[in-house]
Amino acid sequence: MSILLEEQEQSQKAFGLAARDSSGLLSGFHYSRRHEIIGIVTQVGSKVQKFKVGDKAGVGTMIGSCGTCDHCHLDLENYCPKSVHTYTIFGADHGSKNYGGFSDIIVVNEHYVVGIPDNLSLEGGAPLLCAGITVYSPMKYYGLDKPGLHVGVVGLGGLGHLAVKFAKAFGVKVTVISTSQSKKTEAIEQLKADSFLISHDTKEMQGAFGTLDGIIDTVSSPQPIMPLVDLLKTNGKLIMVGAPDMDKPMELPAFPLLVGRKLIGGSISGGMKETQEMIDFAAKHNISASVEVISMDYVNKAMDRLAKGDVRYRFVIDIGNTLKY
Amino acid sequence: MSILLEEQEQSQKAFGLAARDSSGLLSGFHYSRRHEIIGIVTQVGSKVQKFKVGDKAGVGTMIGSCGTCDHCHLDLENYCPKSVHTYTIFGADHGSKNYGGFSDIIVVNEHYVVGIPDNLSLEGGAPLLCAGITVYSPMKYYGLDKPGLHVGVVGLGGLGHLAVKFAKAFGVKVTVISTSQSKKTEAIEQLKADSFLISHDTKEMQGAFGTLDGIIDTVSSPQPIMPLVDLLKTNGKLIMVGAPDMDKPMELPAFPLLVGRKLIGGSISGGMKETQEMIDFAAKHNISASVEVISMDYVNKAMDRLAKGDVRYRFVIDIGNTLKY
Repeated sequence: MSILLEEQEQSQKAFGLAARDSSGLLSGFHYSRRHEIIGIVTQVGSKVQKFKVGDKAGVGTMIGSCGTCDHCHLDLENYCPKSVHTYTIFGADHGSKNYGGFSDIIVVNEHYVVGIPDNLSLEGGAPLLCAGITVYSPMKYYGLDKPGLHVGVVGLGGLGHLAVKFAKAFGVKVTVISTSQSKKTEAIEQLKADSFLISHDTKEMQGAFGTLDGIIDTVSSPQPIMPLVDLLKTNGKLIMVGAPDMDKPMELPAFPLLVGRKLIGGSISGGMKETQEMIDFAAKHNISASVEVISMDYVNKAMDRLAKGDVRYRFVIDIGNTLKY
Repeated sequence: MSILLEEQEQSQKAFGLAARDSSGLLSGFHYSRRHEIIGIVTQVGSKVQKFKVGDKAGVGTMIGSCGTCDHCHLDLENYCPKSVHTYTIFGADHGSKNYGGFSDIIVVNEHYVVGIPDNLSLEGGAPLLCAGITVYSPMKYYGLDKPGLHVGVVGLGGLGHLAVKFAKAFGVKVTVISTSQSKKTEAIEQLKADSFLISHDTKEMQGAFGTLDGIIDTVSSPQPIMPLVDLLKTNGKLIMVGAPDMDKPMELPAFPLLVGRKLIGGSISGGMKETQEMIDFAAKHNISASVEVISMDYVNKAMDRLAKGDVRYRFVIDIGNTLKY
């Protein structure tokens, strides 16, 4: 059942996005936020303009923002202090819960919904809505999307494998940096990365000293940061996109930043306008996430495998066919 | 006596810049590098094109670079790994010493010499050649020179007071952040800063949460970095230009960088082309360093006062009139 909220003032542009039909899919588990959803529009409110029933549509990390602050005016709703997460224990009214991608139906104001081009698969497209935009946006913002640049991608998981795909589509040379030698073959042969470094191999890392224009660091666990800074050229940029442990600050010697005019920056997801741009770019360049589609009753097993890093590279739940009450 | 090196291959464009005449001045002591020099050209080599005898000219942090690397081709000789410092225990041949601004005469390839406009005083202009370019260059590179932006300047010393002057000339709103309440009057009344914060006043700092587009941090001693990051708006940039202690890394929690798309960058001096641009901008906007001119025999006393922070804001030695053998 889809829900129509057109009578409510704050949701005049809302439409029902139901994922219960056979092609409804969503991906989950990323940071346990469950906010990468693609489905088919089943109902629309009377004032909805961008979508009609039957359209493929996607919902990412947020389903609301204030709409009036500087962030919202600059299409950076993802940085709006009042943005409402798609999956959260607090809903828009700060009282109810949002189950996000674990629901069979979601009702969203159309501003927070992106159109999904026909050639983008539901299952491979869904992870783009968080993992994809999370790596695409900083490459754009920090100017790491220029053909001929050389960018490093740290961590070859859900975010990292998409970073490689987008970077290659930008015409950027890519080096994957990983703790795991087992990722080398897939990085080079499947994802077409240009080279591969083992982050704890001091000799290998020193051999790549000063070779990268930028690094997209997708790792969220604590890690030594200086070896990464050392890989950067003058003017190089190390961009953190994995949500790190807030209680464990990184150790940052400032001197290498000065003498190489390097920077360390962060980025988190992206605004709605840029998310649509990213989806359109992905469809044009045949970029989608490499996924393993699972049924809802496989969730607990999937969680166990996730804890061991045993997924290439995203689990996607077929909600439409498998969510049973 | 000036020295003419036109017969030496590597110095074919060299010219003698002598500071012994009555208007010869140089500033010193900055990080004990002694590399902020203005004087009058007394001799030129036969292939020198930019200068003639009698011109006002300046020498900053470097007197050489390889001339062939990417940095040199991009007018970033200051980041050339083979750049030769004006004051160093090793000279261009890595054997002899360069006494830089503590000499009465310096011989420099004209590429590393900047022209000094007539209206820029020798004593007030000299500190621009390191302190000035050190704050000007990052404001340009990181886009903090746009009218209407709001920039913080941490530390009101040799670098900081020039950062305030340049920022005001760019049309930027300036907040000075200092550990010392005694700096407030001079920041606001003399340097025309718009506001002032005591960095250890938690309430004052929290009141300015999220208000700055950027920060030029001129402090070289260890300091807590998070309170500064918290002052930044979304997309804010914290730029370190004080040479920090290499053995004491800063503690950097990455999460605030992600959720505010903030960055921490560094910068060190500037290339020759930009140094000339900075000098011309300073002359046009009547920007010069606030200095105390001293004689050479006051050097030891000046060092004692420097250790106590007792200078507003740069000592400049009148070498021409006071250097005696």
